[in-house]
This record gives sequence, C-alpha cells and structure tokens, in this order.
Amino acid sequence: MIISGKMNLFVPVPKMKSEFVRILINSGFTTRNAELCAGIFTENSLDGIYSHGVNRFSKFIMYVRKGYIIPQAVPTLVHSAGALEQWNGNLGPGPLNATHATERAVSLSEKNGTGMVALANTNHWMRGGTYGWQAVKKDCAFIGWTNTEPNMPVWGAIDTRLGNNPVVFAVPFGNEAIVLDSAMSQYSYGKMELFRMEGKKLPFPGGFDSNGKMTDDPYEILLTKRALPAGYWKGAGLSMLLDILAAILSAGLSTHEIRRMGAEFSLSQVFIAINLKKLSNHSSINDQLNRIIRDLKKSLPANDETSIRYPGEQTPLTRKENLENGIPVNEAVWKEILSL
Amino acid sequence: MIISGKMNLFVPVPKMKSEFVRILINSGFTTRNAELCAGIFTENSLDGIYSHGVNRFSKFIMYVRKGYIIPQAVPTLVHSAGALEQWNGNLGPGPLNATHATERAVSLSEKNGTGMVALANTNHWMRGGTYGWQAVKKDCAFIGWTNTEPNMPVWGAIDTRLGNNPVVFAVPFGNEAIVLDSAMSQYSYGKMELFRMEGKKLPFPGGFDSNGKMTDDPYEILLTKRALPAGYWKGAGLSMLLDILAAILSAGLSTHEIRRMGAEFSLSQVFIAINLKKLSNHSSINDQLNRIIRDLKKSLPANDETSIRYPGEQTPLTRKENLENGIPVNEAVWKEILSL
Repeated sequence: MIISGKMNLFVPVPKMKSEFVRILINSGFTTRNAELCAGIFTENSLDGIYSHGVNRFSKFIMYVRKGYIIPQAVPTLVHSAGALEQWNGNLGPGPLNATHATERAVSLSEKNGTGMVALANTNHWMRGGTYGWQAVKKDCAFIGWTNTEPNMPVWGAIDTRLGNNPVVFAVPFGNEAIVLDSAMSQYSYGKMELFRMEGKKLPFPGGFDSNGKMTDDPYEILLTKRALPAGYWKGAGLSMLLDILAAILSAGLSTHEIRRMGAEFSLSQVFIAINLKKLSNHSSINDQLNRIIRDLKKSLPANDETSIRYPGEQTPLTRKENLENGIPVNEAVWKEILSL
Repeated sequence: MIISGKMNLFVPVPKMKSEFVRILINSGFTTRNAELCAGIFTENSLDGIYSHGVNRFSKFIMYVRKGYIIPQAVPTLVHSAGALEQWNGNLGPGPLNATHATERAVSLSEKNGTGMVALANTNHWMRGGTYGWQAVKKDCAFIGWTNTEPNMPVWGAIDTRLGNNPVVFAVPFGNEAIVLDSAMSQYSYGKMELFRMEGKKLPFPGGFDSNGKMTDDPYEILLTKRALPAGYWKGAGLSMLLDILAAILSAGLSTHEIRRMGAEFSLSQVFIAINLKKLSNHSSINDQLNRIIRDLKKSLPANDETSIRYPGEQTPLTRKENLENGIPVNEAVWKEILSL
C-alpha cells in the first residue's frame, strides 16, 4: 500500500498502541506479544519511520491472516557454538523474532565480548534501526542485516535477482545513539511511488528506463523495475554478500529462494552485538565519539540549505514532537486500521 | 605515485618476491617478516591488484624510511574479552599486523564460533581482500574493514572529513572464494588519475566540479577533491559508521585524528571471522552457495558486453595467467623498485 495523501490526523501514542494491541490480540497474538509488537509498531511511528510503523500495520495483519506470519510461533535454538548461535524463527512475527535475536546477541556479548545470532525462517523486521536502538540501551554496538525478496538487478543485468538487504550499524552516543539503517538500493520502491504520485523527479537517478538509460523519472523505473543499487556495482556487490552471509550463517533461505515463496516471508537475518562495557577503553568511548562528531560537524556545507547531521540525530527530536503532538497519520490509513 | 604507462614487463613470480625480500631485509625487516610481507605484495600483484601490490611497494618502503612503518614492531594484546580482542599494532607493517589479526580472529572463532579482533595503531593493509582470502582458507567467513585518511566529504559538504574505509566480505566457495573488497567512494583517486591521464571521462559521475555540480570529468574532481561517496548519502553514512566502529572498538585513531598525523598511518581496523565448521549446516553450505550463484548467473544481461560475475570470480583466472606469463609491471615502476 502506497501512502500518498497528507498526514492529516495526529494520533496520540497511547491511542495508537492500544488500537494495535486490540487488533493483534484479535489476530491471535498473546497479550504479552501483542503489547511487545504494538510497542514496536508504535515506536517506529513515533520515531518518524511511518513506512515501517503505522503505514505498514495493515499489511502486517494481512500477512498474519494469510498464514505467512504465525502469531504464536516463537524462535527456537537450532545450534550453539559459543558466541555464535543459529536460531529458527519458525515464521513468527518478524519484530518479535528480531527482538529476541538482539537480546540473545547482547546476552552472548556479555559473556564473550561479542555475540552473533543468525536467524532463519523469520519475517520482515520492519525498521531495522529498531534493533540498533535496542542494543545501544544495553551499552552495545550493533551490526545487523536482513535479506529481502528480489527487488533490484545484479549490476549490468535487467531482471531483479538481488534484494535491497538493509544493514544497520548502531553505537550508543550520550543518552541517545548513532544509528544507520541503510538499504542497498538507492531509493525504495515506496519512495519512488511517492515521487511519481506527486509528479516529481527523483533528486538523483534511481534506476533505468526501458532504453537502458539511467533516469531520475520514477515512473520509468516503476515500469522497468530496474532500481539502481546504491553506488552501482558497489551496492549490488554488498547486497549479494549480505544475502549470502544471512542465508549460510542461519541455514535459512537466500533471496532467490524467498522469490519462490510468492510473498516476502521466511527471511534470513544476522545480529551482532559488541559489548562496550567489555572494552579496555569503555569509559572514554563517549568522549571519542563526541570528538568524531564535532569534527564532522565542522564540514563546510555545499549550500545554505544543507545541515550536516549524523544518522539518528533527528530521531530524538521527531520522537519528542510526535509524543507532544500525536503521531501524524494519513486519514485513510488510520480508518483502515480502525476497521481491522 | 600514479602508474599511467603500459604494463610492458612481465616479471616472474619468484623474481618479484625475491626482489621484495631483498629490499625489505635491507630496510630492517627480519628474514621471516620480509618473506611474509614480500609474499603478500607478490600475491596481491599475482591476483591482479597491482595498485596494492607491485605499484605500491616503493611507497611502502618510503613509509618505512620515514618511520611511519616500523619494520620490526609486532602487535601486542591490549585486552581480551573472550571472543573479542583489542590489539595494538605498534605501527608495524600493515600487511603483517592484519595477517596476525586475521589469524587471531580465526583462532578465536575456532573456540567461540566467531571471533573479533580490533587493531589500533596499524598501517595500510594494502589489499583488504588479502585477509578475506586468508580466512576462507581456514573455512571461515570474514568481515573486516579499515579506516583511512580523510578523502571524501560528508554528504552535502565540500571539504574531505570522511575516509573511503574499504570493507571486505569473504566466504569460501569450492576451492576458491567469493571476496568483496569495496571502498566507500565511487572511484579511488588512483583510478580517477588514470582516467584523467588518458583524457577519458569516468563511466559514471564520480564527484563534484567547482560549481557544485556532479561530474564525470576526473580533472574537475581532482581539483575540487569532492569525490562522490558510493550511493551518495548511503556510502557517506556507511563510511562514517565504519570509522566510528574501527576507532572505538580498537581504542585507536579515527579518520579526523589520522588527518593530524600528516600522512596515512596509525590506522584502526576490525577483523571478524565466523567459523563455518562450527555451524549445524556446514556440510551443505557449498551446495547452497552454488544454488545462489547459479541463480544470479541466470540474470539477463543489459547488453552483449555484460558478463555477470561474482566478486572474486576473476581472481583465480588472473592468478593462473600471471603465474604462467609473469606479473605485468610498468617498466618505470620496476626500475624504481630495482633501485631500492
């Protein structure tokens, strides 16, 4: 579902969460898991990631109804190798499985300095950054990624056989965090749809037209489905290796096997936690981060409109604003949710 | 040094290695370390990565003479936290330090499933892929990265405060490997120099001109020094997080602190090994990789000139060719080396 209209409603946080809880319980979730899952969808929206929060909730429920997501399934340990564990997600709800995998990675890092969890047969984790934000609260740095259904071509090809496989890097910073959550395509299809509906060009080329020329016209790219990997061959190569590692480390499905499922489910993911408390320099890390950020902020902006920000810098501000004013939601989206 | 002329000499592998050994011993290396280091410079050239093999050797020796690289320094363990170790490279030769760190990460993974080594105060590791190829020989998957001196701007800025921070992903595949070695800039300065000297445009825009417009003219980019991060804001963000993690995990220098050194030394690096022998699905991983590669190879090429290859696929072929014919070297480069 593409959300094109204005965000003309402001839904208070408790109201949004309680609606999600109600629907999840009706859809077969236990009360505890409904609370957890509703919390993640609400927080993603609160943090401004509406595409993987309130705007995605109806699709999530549809996937539950179709049996792609099994509400009461919980992840099971397949194999333990010390600081590395392989888990089966058993097609449970993606955000709950990913939360569990993050907790396991953090727990392994408490004993071993670092912990790695590979998770097979799971579902879309919604906002990848969520698990970075979870890990930093335990004083861990975090690296994680997921594979996806095929949605971009190998570099030099025209048919889609690679996923855009978002990767997340996070480190605690002050009371907040630096959190990068970056898919390997230059633009998501959702973003290109938005530009098309508003009749706008993309700020930079985002794919190829039917003549095989690079284009900033979202309409052309939506036709050819030849989305551009970020950095051309570089994003394509990174995407390929992220999928390979997720699939072999978890003993789960690779992007080409997900294609055969007919819908985007049964994904493979990796979660790495690095416990900063276990480092010799733990007490000076935040000062070092301050110096790094201070240097980057001294950058000379290319023009007056540019402000130099680190990934995640805006999140606490958006969170505060949405907490005060309510979460902005498109009326049609909210109406559909209320009808679930 | 920019190598622009033709590669018109073919130097047999034993000859190249023995020259390197001779010069390294003359420069203060022990015989054993001279053999190891010469081996890496020769193998990088053998595998076709001349820019970080034979073409870089003279600069490496210059750095030894300037005292940036200390030939007999060996890495020392700073802190152990189980599967995670922090090491000080003590400004020893980058390829030897990185080889040691890779061995430690592999060794930790034998006990813990995964092993992570963060290395401070080290030097340029030359070809990052080298350590991926080393790890796969021990049946490990590998993730590693290094920071660098500043050589590209933050997205939206004009002065260079980020490094291009190459990242390496490797997995064993048959008797060879899939090895991705990718810097976060769209093109290296070396490559842009080559295009400029040949009077050619870049295949894709690689930076900004003095009007702040994106350009494929290497001359303009060499003037502005505004190289393009791969995937625009995406490569810039990844680069930033790679530097942050390398610096804080190793308790080493960040890119902005390397700038103050006045030359590119005292770098920070991370090495992660994942021991495939420790996984429940170890015996089926190669079959799974075969299926993934087979699917990607079915891609429809955009034109007749395109061949769909995985990263590292060409390496064994180049290696074989260079082993038979000798390693192609520019005459001036070889002459300079012989004079060392």
